[in-house]
Amino acid sequence: MYDEKPHVDFWYEFASTYSYPAAMRIEALAAARSVTIDWRPFLLGPVFADFGWRDSPFNIYPVKGRYMWRDMRRICDSLDLPLQPPQPFPQNSLLAARIAIALRGEARAAFSKAVYRAEFGEGVTISDRTALAALLTAIGADADATLALAEQGVNKDRLKAECAIAKSLGLPGAPCLVTPDGEIFWGKDRLEQGLDWASAPRPA
Amino acid sequence: MYDEKPHVDFWYEFASTYSYPAAMRIEALAAARSVTIDWRPFLLGPVFADFGWRDSPFNIYPVKGRYMWRDMRRICDSLDLPLQPPQPFPQNSLLAARIAIALRGEARAAFSKAVYRAEFGEGVTISDRTALAALLTAIGADADATLALAEQGVNKDRLKAECAIAKSLGLPGAPCLVTPDGEIFWGKDRLEQGLDWASAPRPA
Repeated sequence: MYDEKPHVDFWYEFASTYSYPAAMRIEALAAARSVTIDWRPFLLGPVFADFGWRDSPFNIYPVKGRYMWRDMRRICDSLDLPLQPPQPFPQNSLLAARIAIALRGEARAAFSKAVYRAEFGEGVTISDRTALAALLTAIGADADATLALAEQGVNKDRLKAECAIAKSLGLPGAPCLVTPDGEIFWGKDRLEQGLDWASAPRPA
Repeated sequence: MYDEKPHVDFWYEFASTYSYPAAMRIEALAAARSVTIDWRPFLLGPVFADFGWRDSPFNIYPVKGRYMWRDMRRICDSLDLPLQPPQPFPQNSLLAARIAIALRGEARAAFSKAVYRAEFGEGVTISDRTALAALLTAIGADADATLALAEQGVNKDRLKAECAIAKSLGLPGAPCLVTPDGEIFWGKDRLEQGLDWASAPRPA
């Protein structure tokens, strides 16, 4: 028998507001429970397309949008995270997701947190290639090489495959934690529960 | 100066699944913070109509519905609350809401909790007049008199007015806590934050 640590997959979308505080908190929460994490970026577009949505629900339903931004303000204030909503919202997250997929392990996590902080903490346009290159450099990655890798067909296909998995899992939004026994925990409010579930799995 | 306790309005909809665990927990959470509660039943129909929804989003978007029911199972298990989804879902909550509006104070809270427990804990059809009468009797109310009061025009109008207030506040769903300074906390996951906000208001 392998002595494996408990594990969760952390599914996130760079355009997703609530994924920002989740990404900033997940590592400490997981470490406190000795749970390992795989960072799994995906795109909500294909999920939302199935709902008939061609825009963020926070734009389609302004009542929800107004609530979400106020809620985000309170959350970020309470976590001492900066919040500066990007324009336009949602941001086009395709290139950032491709770069994240092209990275592995710690580099992917570091890049992802850097993207969230820039996008929602500083209002940076994350579809901008130069901005993303600067983030790569800042985390110590080779920006040119990573961008070239990110845009290879095989890497684009890997992101597509991840989106297909997200859909087949039935992820209703982002962020989500998915445990090895298939439990889905949706939202930044379910991080603790998802990690607790992973570290103390119950019989099915 | 009056020595007023901090206060929240607890807005809920009898057809709303997440309002069930919220209703079962709100009193103890509020008491622990010396916060007073007004129970304010309303109907989500007019809110959802503005979204273009003529059914529960959990039916319109099956991915969300599947997630919600699994989430509810975990939540109810963790709170030791029974869960038996009613058929059909959502239930028609109009008569229950009218009855709740016709009641005051402790009676309204007791009736509301009884409705939730019957509807989601036992799968009882809450549009059924006889079932609601039995719940009224069980909480020590005069069932016939309360039903008669509930169906008077003036009481129906009070419910309509409450729904109009809910819309004008911008409630995005149910349950919600609303503090005297106008903060909205949506969802059973925001009870503690909303109560904490009410008991320690910050400068605007």
